[in-house]
Amino acid sequence: MKVFELQNGFGLDRLVMAERPIPVPGPREVLIKMRAVSLNSRDLGVIGGFYYPDMKFPLIPVSDGVGEVAAVGEQVARFRMGDRVSGTFSQRWISGEPTKEWLDGLLGGPLDGMLAEYAVLHEDGLVRVPEHLTDAEAACLPCAGVTAWQAVVAEGRVKAGDTVVVQGTGGVALFALQFAKLNGARVIVLSGSEDKLERVSRLGADHLVSYRATPDWDEEVQRLTNGRGADHVLELVGAATLNRSVAACRFGGQISLIGLLSGHEVENFRLVPTFQKRIRLQGINVGNREMFEAMNRAIAFHRLRPVVDRTFSFEQSLEAFRYLEKGTHFGKVCIVF
Amino acid sequence: MKVFELQNGFGLDRLVMAERPIPVPGPREVLIKMRAVSLNSRDLGVIGGFYYPDMKFPLIPVSDGVGEVAAVGEQVARFRMGDRVSGTFSQRWISGEPTKEWLDGLLGGPLDGMLAEYAVLHEDGLVRVPEHLTDAEAACLPCAGVTAWQAVVAEGRVKAGDTVVVQGTGGVALFALQFAKLNGARVIVLSGSEDKLERVSRLGADHLVSYRATPDWDEEVQRLTNGRGADHVLELVGAATLNRSVAACRFGGQISLIGLLSGHEVENFRLVPTFQKRIRLQGINVGNREMFEAMNRAIAFHRLRPVVDRTFSFEQSLEAFRYLEKGTHFGKVCIVF
Amino acid sequence: MKVFELQNGFGLDRLVMAERPIPVPGPREVLIKMRAVSLNSRDLGVIGGFYYPDMKFPLIPVSDGVGEVAAVGEQVARFRMGDRVSGTFSQRWISGEPTKEWLDGLLGGPLDGMLAEYAVLHEDGLVRVPEHLTDAEAACLPCAGVTAWQAVVAEGRVKAGDTVVVQGTGGVALFALQFAKLNGARVIVLSGSEDKLERVSRLGADHLVSYRATPDWDEEVQRLTNGRGADHVLELVGAATLNRSVAACRFGGQISLIGLLSGHEVENFRLVPTFQKRIRLQGINVGNREMFEAMNRAIAFHRLRPVVDRTFSFEQSLEAFRYLEKGTHFGKVCIVF
Amino acid sequence: MKVFELQNGFGLDRLVMAERPIPVPGPREVLIKMRAVSLNSRDLGVIGGFYYPDMKFPLIPVSDGVGEVAAVGEQVARFRMGDRVSGTFSQRWISGEPTKEWLDGLLGGPLDGMLAEYAVLHEDGLVRVPEHLTDAEAACLPCAGVTAWQAVVAEGRVKAGDTVVVQGTGGVALFALQFAKLNGARVIVLSGSEDKLERVSRLGADHLVSYRATPDWDEEVQRLTNGRGADHVLELVGAATLNRSVAACRFGGQISLIGLLSGHEVENFRLVPTFQKRIRLQGINVGNREMFEAMNRAIAFHRLRPVVDRTFSFEQSLEAFRYLEKGTHFGKVCIVF
Repeated sequence: MKVFELQNGFGLDRLVMAERPIPVPGPREVLIKMRAVSLNSRDLGVIGGFYYPDMKFPLIPVSDGVGEVAAVGEQVARFRMGDRVSGTFSQRWISGEPTKEWLDGLLGGPLDGMLAEYAVLHEDGLVRVPEHLTDAEAACLPCAGVTAWQAVVAEGRVKAGDTVVVQGTGGVALFALQFAKLNGARVIVLSGSEDKLERVSRLGADHLVSYRATPDWDEEVQRLTNGRGADHVLELVGAATLNRSVAACRFGGQISLIGLLSGHEVENFRLVPTFQKRIRLQGINVGNREMFEAMNRAIAFHRLRPVVDRTFSFEQSLEAFRYLEKGTHFGKVCIVF
Repeated sequence: MKVFELQNGFGLDRLVMAERPIPVPGPREVLIKMRAVSLNSRDLGVIGGFYYPDMKFPLIPVSDGVGEVAAVGEQVARFRMGDRVSGTFSQRWISGEPTKEWLDGLLGGPLDGMLAEYAVLHEDGLVRVPEHLTDAEAACLPCAGVTAWQAVVAEGRVKAGDTVVVQGTGGVALFALQFAKLNGARVIVLSGSEDKLERVSRLGADHLVSYRATPDWDEEVQRLTNGRGADHVLELVGAATLNRSVAACRFGGQISLIGLLSGHEVENFRLVPTFQKRIRLQGINVGNREMFEAMNRAIAFHRLRPVVDRTFSFEQSLEAFRYLEKGTHFGKVCIVF
Repeated sequence: MKVFELQNGFGLDRLVMAERPIPVPGPREVLIKMRAVSLNSRDLGVIGGFYYPDMKFPLIPVSDGVGEVAAVGEQVARFRMGDRVSGTFSQRWISGEPTKEWLDGLLGGPLDGMLAEYAVLHEDGLVRVPEHLTDAEAACLPCAGVTAWQAVVAEGRVKAGDTVVVQGTGGVALFALQFAKLNGARVIVLSGSEDKLERVSRLGADHLVSYRATPDWDEEVQRLTNGRGADHVLELVGAATLNRSVAACRFGGQISLIGLLSGHEVENFRLVPTFQKRIRLQGINVGNREMFEAMNRAIAFHRLRPVVDRTFSFEQSLEAFRYLEKGTHFGKVCIVF
Repeated sequence: MKVFELQNGFGLDRLVMAERPIPVPGPREVLIKMRAVSLNSRDLGVIGGFYYPDMKFPLIPVSDGVGEVAAVGEQVARFRMGDRVSGTFSQRWISGEPTKEWLDGLLGGPLDGMLAEYAVLHEDGLVRVPEHLTDAEAACLPCAGVTAWQAVVAEGRVKAGDTVVVQGTGGVALFALQFAKLNGARVIVLSGSEDKLERVSRLGADHLVSYRATPDWDEEVQRLTNGRGADHVLELVGAATLNRSVAACRFGGQISLIGLLSGHEVENFRLVPTFQKRIRLQGINVGNREMFEAMNRAIAFHRLRPVVDRTFSFEQSLEAFRYLEKGTHFGKVCIVF
C-alpha cells in the first residue's frame, strides 16, 4: 500500500510517498481502507519537529482520518465489514478522566497516523461516523470537532441563552460556533479578517467583532451582554488575549484554554480579576471516545455539516500541507483518497 | 383594591371577590400592579384543601403572576417604577440548594398569592420578564416554566443530540418540550390524545407516541433510539408510569420526578432495573430565582412563546378555575386584568 | 486446575468441584493464580438461578477474587509477573458512563468467575490491590467495596460534616460506614440486631439506631440532625424502607438505591415528599475501574481494613456458601486458597 | 460606641479610635455586640489604599468578626438575642453562583467592617458559629476559613485518598490543610521556613517540602505520588509558582487560584502543559453563606480548632496590624474585645 511517511528527519521536505505492506489486524483489531483525512496545525507541528524532537523515523503523520472497515480480527465485536469509521485522536482515552497514557496513544505521532491507504486500529479506538457526511466532512471530526465538543459541551456545559465568545475562525473555532448554536447559545465571534467574519455570519454567529477595529473587544462583549459578561470564552489564541478573555467573562464564567496561535507563554497573566470573578480556566486536550460518540449523535440528529475549505487528492498531500501552512483557509483542509 | 380570597373554608365556592386596602411596600419591598396571572393545578389543590389542611383564612390564591412596579420601598435596588416583573414561586429560594424554608415562601399558599389588583413582594423574590412576551405569556413562567427549566436544563443538563421523553401535554410538559428543543435535543412526546399530539408536533416534537395505541411505549422509545434508550425522561404522570420510564431510559439515564396526575403513590416500583442501569431519579420542586433568570435569558434570546390556551378577565376568575378543572386545555389558562 | 462449577442446573447442589486445563493468556491477557475470593449474596442469586435463568452450563461462579500474576500475554503493559491483582466486577466498564455492555462483562455470571485455581482476564479488567491487605481482605473489594465507594464518594460526594445514614450491617454497609468516616462524615447506622450495632460502633459509627426499638427511625434521624435531615441515605434494604429514607433526608438530599434484602418492589413509593424536598435517588451498579483505583488509593493511604467475618478453604467452598446463606455473618465471608 | 476608622486618607497612621452612636437595627437587621475580630492581609490592603483608591472616608475596616446578638429588628426570623454570630465576608452572596453584586457587599470595604463595639447587619448576612470555639477562633472563619473551604471542598471536591499540595503556612493555607485532612486527603505542605514546617507537621501534614532546600518542588510532588501527580494544588503564592503548580498536578488535576503573595502578574504562564494535562484552574473568591454553614457543620462535628497565633485587645488594634505586617505569625492574628 502507499503511505506518506516522514523519513530520517523533520520538515515537509522529508515527507515522502513510500510503499508498505498492508497490515493484518490481530485480535480485536480492525483493518481500515482509508478514504479521507483532514489536516490540523498539530500535524505541521509534528512534521516540523516541534512536538516529538526524539521521534523514531519513519512516521506516518496525520491524526484525523476516516475509512471503511476492510477486515476484522478475531473477537472484534464493535464493528463489521463495510462500516465507515474514524479513529479517535488518542487511542488510549475511552471515557472518564484522562491519564498519562493519553499522550502515548496519539495518532500521527507518537503512533503512526492516517496518511496511508490502509490502517489497523484496535476496535476500542474507533467510532462510527454520521451517515449524512461526505468522507471529507467526516474526516474533520476527531481533533477539531472533539476539541470543540469537550470545550463547549462536555466541560463547558453551554446551555440555551448562554453567551459564548469564540476567538478566530480556525477549525476548532468553527466547530465551537456550530456546537454552541446547536445548544441554543448566543455566539460572538472575534476575528481580524472582515472577510472571514462575513463567512462566519452565514454559519449563524450572532455578533461579529473585529479585533482590529475593536481592540478592546472585552468591553464590546460586556456591552453586548448589558454588562453581565460572557458565560464562556473559548481561548483559542492564548498568550496575547488571556487577560482580555477574563475581562470579557461574567462573574463565575468559564474559559476554555485551547489555542496556541499567538505563542505558548502568557507574558503577564493578571490573577486578581480571575480570583474576584471566580473564573474557571479549563485546559482542553481534544477529548475521549465517549465525547466523540455524543458529538456524533448531535451531528447526525441536526445533520450538521463541518466546514471544508478545500480538498486535495492523496497524491497532492504535500500541496495540501503547503496550503494549510499559508493560513488563508476557512474551514478544514482535507485529502480525499 | 379588589382581590379574590378563600374565605372560611376550602373549595371554589368559598373563593369570593373582596376588597382590601392597597398594601404599602416596606424597606426593600415593591408594590406591583398586577396585569395577569396563570393558573396551575396546584392552585386547585390549595383551594381544595389538599395541600394546607390547617390553612388560616382568608387566603389570596394563585402562585403565578406578572405586573408592573407601581411603587418601591426604601433601599430597593433591583427594580424601578414601571419595570414589568414576576414573583418567584418560592420567595425564599434565591439560588443554590433548597432548604426547608423553601416551603414557607410559596405564593398562593401558605403566603397570599397573586389574584389581586396589587401585591407587595420583597425585591429578592422578583425577576424581570422578557420584553417580547404578552402579559399572559409572561404569567405562565414562575411555576410551569421554571419547573421544566430545572428538570431539563439546571438539573437535567440536556444537551444537543440527547433524546428526551416528555409525558403528556400539560403546562410543564409543553415548556419541557420547548426547552429541550432550544438545547438541541430530540424530543419524544407521549399523550393519550391524538388531537393534542398533533398540536404538539407543531411545537417541534420529533416523535409522537400515543400511549393508548402503544401502551408499551417504553419499547417504542427503545426502538426510536436504536436500543440505546432515552437520556432523560420527564416523569409527569407518576404512579402509573415510573417502571416504564426506567425501562425507557438508557444505562446511566435520568428521570425527573415531577408529576402527580395519576396518583401519589407508585404501587410497585421495581428497584432492580434502577440499580442495574444506574438510573438517577431527581425530584423537581419548581426551582430558584437563579434558574428563573437563566430561563428568561434563553426565552428572550430565542423569542420563545409560552403556549396560552385561553385567557379570562379578572371578574371571570371562577370561570377560569372551572375551565382548568375540566382538563381539556392545551397550554396555560390565564387571567388578564 | 481445580474449579468449582455449576453443572446442568441451578442450586448449591449442582456446584461441584471439577478439573479444567489451565487457561493460556492471549494478547493483552493475564493469567492469575487465585489466592482468595469473597462471596456476595449475588453469587447465591446466580447459583440459585435468579439472575440468569437461561444460563449456559457449566459456569464458574463468584465475582470477587484476588491472585498473583502467573503469566502475561503479548502486549501486556499494565502488569508484571508477581503483581497481586483483582478483577473488576464488570470487565467492560473502565470509566465514565455505564453502557449496556456493562452487563455482559460481569464475572461469576454471565462470564466465568473466580472460584478456580487459575483465571485469565484482560489487563484492562484488572487492578493492583493495596499492599497492606491480606489476600482475604483484598478479595472483599470488587463488589461490596466499589459499590460503597460509588454510592458514598463517586456519586454521593459525601464531605466532612455531612450526615450519612447506613442501613444494616452487610458487606456494602460496612464499607459505606468506613468510607463515610474516611471522608469526615457523621454516620448513623441502622440495624435490627443489638449485637451487630455494638460491633459497628467499634468501626466508628457515630450513632446507632435499632429499627426494632425505634421503628420510626426517620424521626430519630431528624432529631439527631436538629431537624435538618440527613445529607445522604444508603438505601440497602429497599422495598420496605424507601419512604422512610425520603423522610429522613434533608431538602436537596440524596439516596443511593442499592439493596435488595427486603424484596424487589416498593409497594407504595410516595412521590410528593420526593418532589417537595428535591430528593435525588441514584441507582448504584457496583462501579467502574476508575472508581476501584481511587478507592484503592484511599484504602492504602488510610491503611483501612475490610471486615472479614470468617474464612474457609477452597475445599470448603460449599460450606462457605451455606454459611453465607444463614445470614448471621458480620463482614465478608471469604475463601482462601 | 468606640470604633476604629480610617479618616481622611490611607495608611495605618490614619486609622484612629473614634466615637459613633450605637446603630439601630431596621427590619430584618440584627445588632451585634462585637467580641472578637481576626485580621487578614486584605485588611492591610484596604487600609493601604490598594483595593479602593476612591474610598469615601471614614471607613471602619476589618472583614472578619464575631459577636453576640444584642437586639433584633422587626421580622428577624433567623436569630435570637444571645446567639453568637459572624458576618459573611460578602453580605450579598448567599448561595449559588457569584454575581457582580458580590463585590459591593464586602465588609471592611466598601462596607463598614467589624472593628467597632457594635455592628448592624442584615440577618441574611450572618451565620451562627460553632459552640466549642473561643471568640478569637470563631473570628478566624469568614475570610480565611471559607476561602479554604471553597477551594478544598465546595469547588475542589477533595476526597479520601487524594493528594493535596498546600503552598505556605498563611491563614488560608492552614485551614486548607485542616480541611483536606478532615476529608481524608494526603497533604503536602510547602514552605520556605523549616520552623513553620515543623509546626505544620503537628497539624497533620503528611509531607513537608522546603522550597528553599527543594526549589524543584514539583518534581518532589511527582516523586511522592509515584509519578501520578497531585490531584489538587492550592496556589497561594501566585505569580512565581503557577508553572510549577501545573507541573505538580496529575492529568485532569485542579489548581485553586487564591494567593497574592509574590505579586499579581504571572510573567510567563506556559499554556501547553495546561492543555495537555487538561488542568482546571479555578479562581476562588472567599465563598458564599451556604459554604460557610457547611464548613461550620464540619468544624463543629470534628471540633476542629483554627490556629490563632496571637490575640490583642481592642485598644491594641494598631499594634495588631503592625504585628500582622511583619509577617512572622503562624496562624491568625486576632483582636479580642
